Amino acid sequence: MKRLEIYDSILRDGAQSEGISFSVQDKLKIVRLLDDFGVTYIEAGNPSSNPKDIEFFEKASQLKLKTAKLCAFGSTRRKGMRAEEDENVLSLLSANTPAIAIFGKSWDLHATEILKVSLEENLDMVRDTVSFLKSRGKELIFDAEHFFDGYKENPGYALEVLKAAAESGADVLCLCDTNGGTFPEEIYEITKLVCEKFPSLRIGIHCHDDTGCAVANSMMAVSAGAVQIQGTFIGFGERCGNADLSVLIPNLQLKKGCHCIEGDMSTLYDTAAKVADISNTTVSKSRPYVGESAFAHKGGMHIDGVTKLSRSFEHINPELVGNRRRFLMSEVSGRTTVLAKIKDIAPHLTKDSPEVAEIMRQLKEAEHEGYQFESAEASLELFILKVLGKYKPHFSLVMYKTTGEFPPPSSDHTSSAMINIQVDGKHETSASLGNGPVHALDSALRKALLVFYPQLHKMHLIDYKVRVLETDHATSARVRVLIESSDGEHVWTTVGVSTDIIQASWIALADSFEYMLAKTSSEEVPKWE
Amino acid sequence: MKRLEIYDSILRDGAQSEGISFSVQDKLKIVRLLDDFGVTYIEAGNPSSNPKDIEFFEKASQLKLKTAKLCAFGSTRRKGMRAEEDENVLSLLSANTPAIAIFGKSWDLHATEILKVSLEENLDMVRDTVSFLKSRGKELIFDAEHFFDGYKENPGYALEVLKAAAESGADVLCLCDTNGGTFPEEIYEITKLVCEKFPSLRIGIHCHDDTGCAVANSMMAVSAGAVQIQGTFIGFGERCGNADLSVLIPNLQLKKGCHCIEGDMSTLYDTAAKVADISNTTVSKSRPYVGESAFAHKGGMHIDGVTKLSRSFEHINPELVGNRRRFLMSEVSGRTTVLAKIKDIAPHLTKDSPEVAEIMRQLKEAEHEGYQFESAEASLELFILKVLGKYKPHFSLVMYKTTGEFPPPSSDHTSSAMINIQVDGKHETSASLGNGPVHALDSALRKALLVFYPQLHKMHLIDYKVRVLETDHATSARVRVLIESSDGEHVWTTVGVSTDIIQASWIALADSFEYMLAKTSSEEVPKWE
Repeated sequence: MKRLEIYDSILRDGAQSEGISFSVQDKLKIVRLLDDFGVTYIEAGNPSSNPKDIEFFEKASQLKLKTAKLCAFGSTRRKGMRAEEDENVLSLLSANTPAIAIFGKSWDLHATEILKVSLEENLDMVRDTVSFLKSRGKELIFDAEHFFDGYKENPGYALEVLKAAAESGADVLCLCDTNGGTFPEEIYEITKLVCEKFPSLRIGIHCHDDTGCAVANSMMAVSAGAVQIQGTFIGFGERCGNADLSVLIPNLQLKKGCHCIEGDMSTLYDTAAKVADISNTTVSKSRPYVGESAFAHKGGMHIDGVTKLSRSFEHINPELVGNRRRFLMSEVSGRTTVLAKIKDIAPHLTKDSPEVAEIMRQLKEAEHEGYQFESAEASLELFILKVLGKYKPHFSLVMYKTTGEFPPPSSDHTSSAMINIQVDGKHETSASLGNGPVHALDSALRKALLVFYPQLHKMHLIDYKVRVLETDHATSARVRVLIESSDGEHVWTTVGVSTDIIQASWIALADSFEYMLAKTSSEEVPKWE
Repeated sequence: MKRLEIYDSILRDGAQSEGISFSVQDKLKIVRLLDDFGVTYIEAGNPSSNPKDIEFFEKASQLKLKTAKLCAFGSTRRKGMRAEEDENVLSLLSANTPAIAIFGKSWDLHATEILKVSLEENLDMVRDTVSFLKSRGKELIFDAEHFFDGYKENPGYALEVLKAAAESGADVLCLCDTNGGTFPEEIYEITKLVCEKFPSLRIGIHCHDDTGCAVANSMMAVSAGAVQIQGTFIGFGERCGNADLSVLIPNLQLKKGCHCIEGDMSTLYDTAAKVADISNTTVSKSRPYVGESAFAHKGGMHIDGVTKLSRSFEHINPELVGNRRRFLMSEVSGRTTVLAKIKDIAPHLTKDSPEVAEIMRQLKEAEHEGYQFESAEASLELFILKVLGKYKPHFSLVMYKTTGEFPPPSSDHTSSAMINIQVDGKHETSASLGNGPVHALDSALRKALLVFYPQLHKMHLIDYKVRVLETDHATSARVRVLIESSDGEHVWTTVGVSTDIIQASWIALADSFEYMLAKTSSEEVPKWE
């Protein structure tokens, strides 16, 4: 089995994504996650470019990593000085990592036009920096920046740069498609040639996704002999991002039979979700392997096929990466998917039952209003129960009134809410201040409900999302609110739609409490496993 | 120059994306956009699966298309009947399109295990359906479903299916990687073999992105001889999506020298944005060519390089596809990008000016609070003006109070807002009902401002986005609001951050009005070009 080195750069190249910024704590959390998952290297920053990175490396050196080696990242020495005088080079040593990656120019154009040095001086910069860092006992990865563009314009010089690094002791020569403009066949041929020219060194590949080929390009490089795959989890990175390791790792390990990670592949989905969370973003639904829709089937024939035989429409079993199969609803797929949900609730119904037709009709109406139950299965369950007449609400709303105020009503709070609900004929009125009207309403409702249902103290909201639906209506547009809740053990999502964000939030909020109450105390509702 | 046929399936396969649902009007709009852009075929739906599709085909037949041919999509006849008896096959004719695509099973497993027919009957189904539709004068594209999986398990049978379609008169044999699990090298080799076996037919390729290789796989198929590229604009589609035509078209036309579209490549960015809009979604920022970040530079050295020579860090000129270069701000890139903005406003400042240092310090604080100016350049401009003391507010807020109410205050409105502002010492109080508190506040503010600034009647809000920042705080989390406004000629975006959605909206709202006022009446602010 071919062993590959997985080199993650989310903390350095990934931080170049638009909208991504990591705190020191964020970075430490991600290092732990990647180490648990079992990557080989974690490139963690450039200690000379950023004071936060210095603090990070100090703290990171206390971590006991299981499999991953930390790697500091920098460049070859500046022109006109010795490597040991260049404070940027010295800062790489102070990061105190077992491995160091430095990038050097391998495209002649960059040496002469950007760095403004002669081709010979550029080679010296590579030699000096590599030799100096090797003399300090570091494992040294040489990133040949713009290698493919350089090779295509001046193959002789690009190879000379690699030779300079190799002869000075570099352990890995990593070929970078820095601008992301190279196609798979070129990557294959050029990488193959480099592997043949430097048979005793490990060859790495570092691709960007500017032509949508970063994953394929990395795979082609592996076919050509590369053994170190540089990329970033979830594909974060400058411009269009880097080669996505959360896709490459399962591609190579599950489908190509290479050995990539030391950890458990079935934690891939969770690892990606946590990394996205820490990065204050979400994994896009359609991302291979780790997206919520990666194994979501919407077409009726696909659903029919997967039900008969999963490999008929799934290239791998989703459980291998910790993801799960989902059947979506749509006009196209017809009733199959909703039917599966209905069957859970009312096993005696068939697709020809009039109740099923009625559920479908009302679902279509709700979808027309802007509801989407695909990611709010708790609301869907309640919806089906309601249509079937099996739903007994645990409380009813009599009135609420929220305010948003400037100047604020108290120094801590900008909003207030008052609510009156009814449970078994008893009224309860409560009120709360809050950081915004939805927060105030949530607190007031919780207060009122706890009087009747003490089990709700375990429940808390973990996510709150707002999507504006008709953007051309601006502030009077319809909004969809998704609320994710948990009781510490289960997680469920509910949805509300309205032109009023408070009303939409109320609907999702009320559903989230109702769902927990239904799951814990209703006879007719399937219990949590 | 190699001519390729671009076959877009966003209206059929794209509609299989989670969360995508097109109305008839949506579909007609997209057809017009794709025709303007100049694709060759538009696969527009399955007239037998969906009543909306029948209505669509009726209306679509009135459109005068310039270059694109509409294509109806269906399957081979059902087992045990003749093609001319199968209403699904007949409905394809009633769609009245010049071309028809039908898919048939080319993986033996699917014939025997999913359709439950013999291998011979499956071949008959292909033959009958193709012959019948050809006899009615249609151009016929045969989609060999699961061709690559089928070929890998039973190459003889997979080729027999193609032969059955070819001998019955199919014009195009399209090889489908339906499950998206095939890698570039396999795609190349198998496609090449098919092209050699069927030299007189056009060979097509239809890839899915389940291993992140759909774009590369399609390119490899073109290298192997395929001439019809099936995919979807922006890559919508079942599970992980289809091969993304908004990436493939520029890849093939700008970088590989093929001829793909009849329209103007520099409308690509706008076309993708409009298609996403109609689909009620947005183009992800990192999408190659058409994403907002596709040519956005954040790393300091990248910005420095691009400034010296754009091709040093850009694989193509962004203007070729109608996108634009952007310099982002970050701790990593240092001051270069903000400096460019500052230079616009105060050309005498340099990076060493104390004013610049102060702007940077305050920017960092704002970012720490959750502000992000990358996509809100109007707010950034106001921010810089404020720090430089060049900003003279055109109004000031004295108080507002919004409500959100159940039961609602009127049958049309759930909310109300009251506001008092001051302009040049004069107070103005106004109030409004609204579909939600932000809408009410927007209306009340607009009413009050129009008393002083009649030019604002031209201005309207075109987009309103809400992002919850600390999702683990649920409803008390910090939210970031982005508001996009226009005066019919210019478009600008502003941002507000708060734990209170109304306060965050207020900040963005106030900025959007201030920006228009500054641009039209302030001496010290650079005017719109």
